[in-house]
Amino acid sequence: MARYSPSIQNLIAKLGSLPGIGGKSAQKLAFHILDMSDEDTKSLLDAISEARNLTKKCSVCYNFTDSNPCPICSDPQRDKSVLLVVESPKDVATFERMHEYKGLYHVLHGVFDPIKSRSLEDTTIAQLIDRLGKHPEIKEVIVATNQTAEGNATALFLSRMLKPSGIKVSRIASGLPMGSDIEYADDLTLASALKGRITLTDEA
Amino acid sequence: MARYSPSIQNLIAKLGSLPGIGGKSAQKLAFHILDMSDEDTKSLLDAISEARNLTKKCSVCYNFTDSNPCPICSDPQRDKSVLLVVESPKDVATFERMHEYKGLYHVLHGVFDPIKSRSLEDTTIAQLIDRLGKHPEIKEVIVATNQTAEGNATALFLSRMLKPSGIKVSRIASGLPMGSDIEYADDLTLASALKGRITLTDEA
Repeated sequence: MARYSPSIQNLIAKLGSLPGIGGKSAQKLAFHILDMSDEDTKSLLDAISEARNLTKKCSVCYNFTDSNPCPICSDPQRDKSVLLVVESPKDVATFERMHEYKGLYHVLHGVFDPIKSRSLEDTTIAQLIDRLGKHPEIKEVIVATNQTAEGNATALFLSRMLKPSGIKVSRIASGLPMGSDIEYADDLTLASALKGRITLTDEA
Repeated sequence: MARYSPSIQNLIAKLGSLPGIGGKSAQKLAFHILDMSDEDTKSLLDAISEARNLTKKCSVCYNFTDSNPCPICSDPQRDKSVLLVVESPKDVATFERMHEYKGLYHVLHGVFDPIKSRSLEDTTIAQLIDRLGKHPEIKEVIVATNQTAEGNATALFLSRMLKPSGIKVSRIASGLPMGSDIEYADDLTLASALKGRITLTDEA
């Protein structure tokens, strides 16, 4: 019986249900929030409401955006022949941070996950098929779902589904992170790095 | 140029300003919040507002509470001769979780911190002195501020201030955590543990 009042208990529980926030952090956050100025509290609450109100999904790639189509889809500089398929909007931001990829995106908003009983209908896969049918200029689909069982199952499903269309379907490589030690790699990563080995040539 | 819309950028910044939430977690949280149902969002926002509206400071011990005096101060079972002085309300919860301490509390809401230019007036030290004057049944004050320079300075200040009153002022022990390895202890902790050594007797 930690003697918190019900409203504080409730706040701690709500904060603790957010991803990556454990019991101790939820407690710390709750007391911080109780100690904040009214002004700071208002600006936090407003930021949440405003982001939710203004943010829509791009009707082309389903990334979060406040203009439709999103800045990436409407950028004439982007290579319209390649589509990078990712699980979530934050993956788009991660690839954009890299400044290497110049093509377009498609955000699935989930993956095939039998345990959480999420089926493919919960994702934007149907919209992806539709988009590919309407845009014959798309020649390659790079599947960049996470390197998890669900991410791989979704990738496999996509490659089979798109096979008849003749569109090239590729999967981002899995292997050892750059700068990492073989000693600390797990078995699955090591096996995957071995299987995906590339031939070294003198010219490379 | 991570291509987030301004409202998402703002949400990430606000979340990232909370304690213990770094850039990556702020991003993860922001996208989670954008993906939440309207109902879940409302219940999170309500939890924040409600906790802030209902929570007051106990007029006796200054702990957060929604009834005044707080449940601890109004509990007839508690030992009214001892006062445990802590920095913040969450420290009260930590001591209560232990189920060992049966006395009362006093929450300072801060410590003497010259760097952040917090003086003793920002704390409830004046209220503590006042409380001790009004309640001669209090025989001991245990200072349980954090083992930091500021926490120690505050403890020292209190012990000097209360010396004329004849009230016993003690400080919780610092030393090696139970179950910890000497190998990993820092020098200050080790020095403190050595200085605070206790004589072992056969009866113990």
